[in-house]
Order: sequence, then structure tokens, then C-alpha cells
Amino acid sequence: MQDLLFTNEPWTALDCLVERIGPSGVFVVVDDNTRRCVLPLMQQRSRCVADATVISIPPGEEHKTVSTVEEVWAELQSGGATRHSLIVNLGGGLVTDLGGFAAACFKRGMRFVNIPTSLLGAVDAAVGGKTGVNFGGLKNEIGVFREADAVVISTCFFSTLPTGELQSGYAEMLKHGLLKSREATARLLDLQLDASVDPEALLALLRESVEVKRDIVAQDPTEKGIRKALNLGHTAGHAFEALAMKRAEHLPHGHAVASGLIVALVLSHMKEGMDSSLIHSLAAFVDRHYIKPRITCDDYPALIDMMKHDKKNRHAGDLCFTLLRGPGEPLIDRFVSEEDIRAAIDIMRDLLHI
Amino acid sequence: MQDLLFTNEPWTALDCLVERIGPSGVFVVVDDNTRRCVLPLMQQRSRCVADATVISIPPGEEHKTVSTVEEVWAELQSGGATRHSLIVNLGGGLVTDLGGFAAACFKRGMRFVNIPTSLLGAVDAAVGGKTGVNFGGLKNEIGVFREADAVVISTCFFSTLPTGELQSGYAEMLKHGLLKSREATARLLDLQLDASVDPEALLALLRESVEVKRDIVAQDPTEKGIRKALNLGHTAGHAFEALAMKRAEHLPHGHAVASGLIVALVLSHMKEGMDSSLIHSLAAFVDRHYIKPRITCDDYPALIDMMKHDKKNRHAGDLCFTLLRGPGEPLIDRFVSEEDIRAAIDIMRDLLHI
Repeated sequence: MQDLLFTNEPWTALDCLVERIGPSGVFVVVDDNTRRCVLPLMQQRSRCVADATVISIPPGEEHKTVSTVEEVWAELQSGGATRHSLIVNLGGGLVTDLGGFAAACFKRGMRFVNIPTSLLGAVDAAVGGKTGVNFGGLKNEIGVFREADAVVISTCFFSTLPTGELQSGYAEMLKHGLLKSREATARLLDLQLDASVDPEALLALLRESVEVKRDIVAQDPTEKGIRKALNLGHTAGHAFEALAMKRAEHLPHGHAVASGLIVALVLSHMKEGMDSSLIHSLAAFVDRHYIKPRITCDDYPALIDMMKHDKKNRHAGDLCFTLLRGPGEPLIDRFVSEEDIRAAIDIMRDLLHI
Repeated sequence: MQDLLFTNEPWTALDCLVERIGPSGVFVVVDDNTRRCVLPLMQQRSRCVADATVISIPPGEEHKTVSTVEEVWAELQSGGATRHSLIVNLGGGLVTDLGGFAAACFKRGMRFVNIPTSLLGAVDAAVGGKTGVNFGGLKNEIGVFREADAVVISTCFFSTLPTGELQSGYAEMLKHGLLKSREATARLLDLQLDASVDPEALLALLRESVEVKRDIVAQDPTEKGIRKALNLGHTAGHAFEALAMKRAEHLPHGHAVASGLIVALVLSHMKEGMDSSLIHSLAAFVDRHYIKPRITCDDYPALIDMMKHDKKNRHAGDLCFTLLRGPGEPLIDRFVSEEDIRAAIDIMRDLLHI
């Protein structure tokens, strides 16, 4: 299993790791944002980053492409990388997904370490072995399952993030809390989630959250069964996200997932008898902290159509959800009817005042 | 471990396999040669090939590129492939390497079956999990280790191959024989290797040969140690091949390897005390059946330089060979001097009348 290091001195952890691995060269992949906001501090405090070759990629989903990966490969090649060299991915989910894929394929695989610089990256993309890029208009269509050799997780970079990004990552933590227990969920709902958030308190919650994901992934690395539990909130969430994207409305991934979690909980109550108290406390938290999807009843057919085409469905056309019998008790591959979904979105809109 | 099926009814074997796997769709990857010479027979005799979507790629190393892989991905996407679909790679090493890489990355991995149509493909490229394409002027620079779910091996397609291709693949079989035992090598040197070769006798030898490779790969799938035994003959062979390519001389891979094997055996005699009788019988076979590198003493510096840059060297600049203590006793990572190599090439040239 990969090394997972939780620390607010990531520079020290990285230098120790690199000394242990003993690579024949170190290449740091950043995007223009992390090159500006994070790299200088790392270069100042980490010997191996100071000595490394820096490969910078353009930020934004539109650059998460095979052609950007080819640019990384070309720079590895011209920098003399061998299969014994090491890539350090320093950035958000885009950098770790794309840099991980580049590493997994260069000379049929070199080692890589992820240092996620966003909460979403830390909690979601940096752990679990999913690497990849977009292709032909579809997200993460091309990639491989390949775990980073190590992930160094810190909260010290999150202050460089734009507003709303912290909330976005926190939605995935709420999901992990729901997959773990009622108590874990309660601890998350208790945090003061704003710019004044305590980095050490957040690091402790983050550790608990990442470990939930790691344990699920370890049981099912290639997503044939229980790993689908991690899709909780995402079938509806992706639909909200896609609709907003189509209309050029601002609805970051985690914010869409936060509303998607409410839909999943309402369906869990309706179909699986989950008790409803949690729905109300989660909805109050989401209502307070999150951007909400701007939808009306007229959008239901489009949303349902998108849910039918979720990548994780075995057969396109099914409406298939991850639900909960209760906190910590996920149920995968639950089929629901269009009527159920309409009702659940209605209730979500009531709870979130949409 | 992957299924390895040796049969001269590959259509029947494939239909059985596909029935067992139950994919949501079948895509057959061919190149222009196998589309013309092999696909019609398969479409006629195999139900699943008759019903499959055919994806045709251009033949030739110059098309073994990321951009050809992108064309395959685009056709998979437009053909509605899911992660539960199946790719059947029907072709030589180029098709199985490239098609395997395409499958390994599409939606983070779909299943694939290889049906090698050349002897070299059957004995070498189709088994062992190496997939990939050329990049930035380097062979197989981009790829992953991913075994085919099954490989269906037949000799019935080899009659469609151009002259010299059978010999090329047979050089890898000679290598496997040397890695196995004196007896295995003797059996190979006894075969009548020409257009009149008996397909069933060849299939039996091929089975033995592929099993040698499979056993070595199983011990070391990612080439950290003993798998380097499979590099026997290739350090010098690649140098002969590269020099010929530079001069636009015709020297197919296996033919270059055949001469490379003689260099490796001579070095094994000089450095490791291997007895010399085998060198003479192998050299007589190579002299009779193979195209030989057109080299003189003036080429030695260039050849040695290429050997120093062999991809499998841990440190560029070393001269590192796989040698034999005797048949069936490989020794990896043996450092040799430039003087030793000069002497070994001299002896090889004498033996092969170059």
C-alpha cells in the first residue's frame, strides 16, 4: 500500500521520502497557479524540490488533455528522465491526475509522489490510484489505475485557494463521514468552515476522511463493487454540475456534490428506511455553506437523462444510485424510478430553499 | 495469470472466450495488412469477429504513435465502447502493443485479447504485459505493463507473412531455448526453418518457447531483476538493428537479435566460462538462415556507443549484458569492457563470415 503522510511540514516529509527512494532524478509537475503560489515555498524549504527540474502545465479542465500529457513526456525525455526517476505532482486534482498518468506511462511506468495543494485534491484525487485526462468531450476518459508511491497531505497550502474551493473539497469529506458513521458525520458538521478554519483541526478531520477512502479503495482497487460506495451523492451531483456547465453557471464540483448528497439521503430515506434526522442537519449545513444548483421542475427531464448516462452505470439507461441504509452502511447499485428521483429533488429543493 | 491458448482453430477458441467473458461489445483492432490477409477468414469462422466493430490502423513503426492510439480511442468512443467491452488485437507486435495500450487506458482499462498473426508477435510481443508506442524518436517509450486477458496462439496465419519474418520470430525462440536448456536449444536447431515448415511441429515448439517467457515474466512482471534474462542477445542486437536503420539497410529485428545472440554467447564463453560447442552449432544455424549485419571494424565505436545507451541499463554509459553460465543458467547485469566487446564482435564476424 502507498505511503500516506499527514503533516504540515510537507517539505521535510518529501526530502525524507526522496532520500529513501533514491531516484536518478526528480521532476516536479506544477500548473501555472501552483508554480506561482506554492512552488517558491517548496523550493525554499525542500532540497529535492530546489534541485528538481520543473515541468509546468497550463491550468484549467480544457488543458487536461492527451496533448498536455505529451508535453510532459517531451520534457521528461529532454530532461533525461529514466524509469528510475521520480515525478512529484504539486497541485490540485488536475495536476495529480495528469501527472500521475504521465508517470504511469513514461517508459512503462516511473514512480510518483502526490502533494495535493487543494482540499479536494487531498481528499479525493490524490488517493485511490485514478489517473487520467479528458478525451472527446468526456471527463477522465483516458487513464489508468495506478497508485502514487506516496501522498504527502498538508493543510498549509489551502490558504492560497480561491473562495469556495475549501467548501468544494469539504463536500467529499462529508461524503466520507456519511460512509463511516454518524459520529464522524457529526464531527464534520461541527467545524467552523470558513477562512478562519484551524489548519490542525482540519488536518485531523482530513486524515480520518482520507483513511475512509483508502480503506474502501483497498477492498476494491478497480471499482468492481464496494468502491462504488464512493459515488454517494455523485449521480445527482454530476447532473447538477453538467447542467450548470452547459449554462455557464458557476457551480464547482464539490458544491454540486453537496446538493447531490441531499438527494441521495432523501432517496435513502424513501427507499431504504434511513432515519431522516441526518437529512435535516446536513441540509442546514449545505444551505449555510454551499452554492446551490439553479434548477426548476422544467430541468428534471434533462437531469434524469444525465443521470442515466453516468459512467459508472453498467447499462446506459438505468438509474442506479449508491444509497445508505444508515450512516456507515452503504448500498451500491440501487435502482430507482424516475418518480422517486423527481420526489427526492423536490424535497432537496425545499430543504435548500431553491 | 492470463489464459494462453495454443490452437490452430483460433476462431473457435476466441468464440468460447468471448462467450465466457460476456463483454458489452467487441472491437477488433487490425492493421491494413491483417485486415486484408487475416480478418476475412476470422470473420467467416468466428461469430464474435463477424459481429464486431473493426478498427483499422496503418501499418509500420512510423504509425506506432500516440496519435494512432488517439484514433483508436476516438473509434472506441464513437462505437459506444464501455469499460465492459472487449478489444481483440489481431495482428503483429505493432497491433498488440498499440491495441493493448489503447485498451489499458480507455476508461482506465478495458479487457483485451491478443491474437498474434506473426511468429515474432506470438513468441514475444503478445505475452508479458508490455504495451506501448514510440515517442520522441524512442521505441516503446510510452506504455504500461498490462497483460492481455487471454492470448490465442496459432501458426496458421504465418503463411501470410513476408519472407524473413518467420526467421525473425524464430530468433526469439532460439533465445528462449538458450534460457531453458541445452535440449530445448537442440530441438530448435533441428527444425527445417523455411516455407515448408510443419505448422503443428512449429506450434509445439512455440508452446514450449512462450512458456519459458511466461515463467520468467511471472517471476518479475515489472522487469526489476530476472526478467532481464529476456534481454539475452538484445544489447548487441539492438545496436546492429539501429545502425542498419540509420543506413537504411534491411535488417529486421529478429535477424539483428540472431547475430546479437552469437555476441552474447561469445562473451559468455570469455567471461563466464560457458563451453563453446553451442556457439558453433548456433552460429552455423544463424549463418544458414539469417540476414547478417553489414559491419566492419570502423563501426565498433558507434555500436559500442549504442550499447551504452540501451534502455535497460540502470546508468547510461555502462556496458551491461545478460550472459549465460551455460544453457538454462542466465546471468543478468554483467558488466563487460569495450575490449571484450570488440573481441566478441570479431569472433562473431568470423563465425558468420561477415
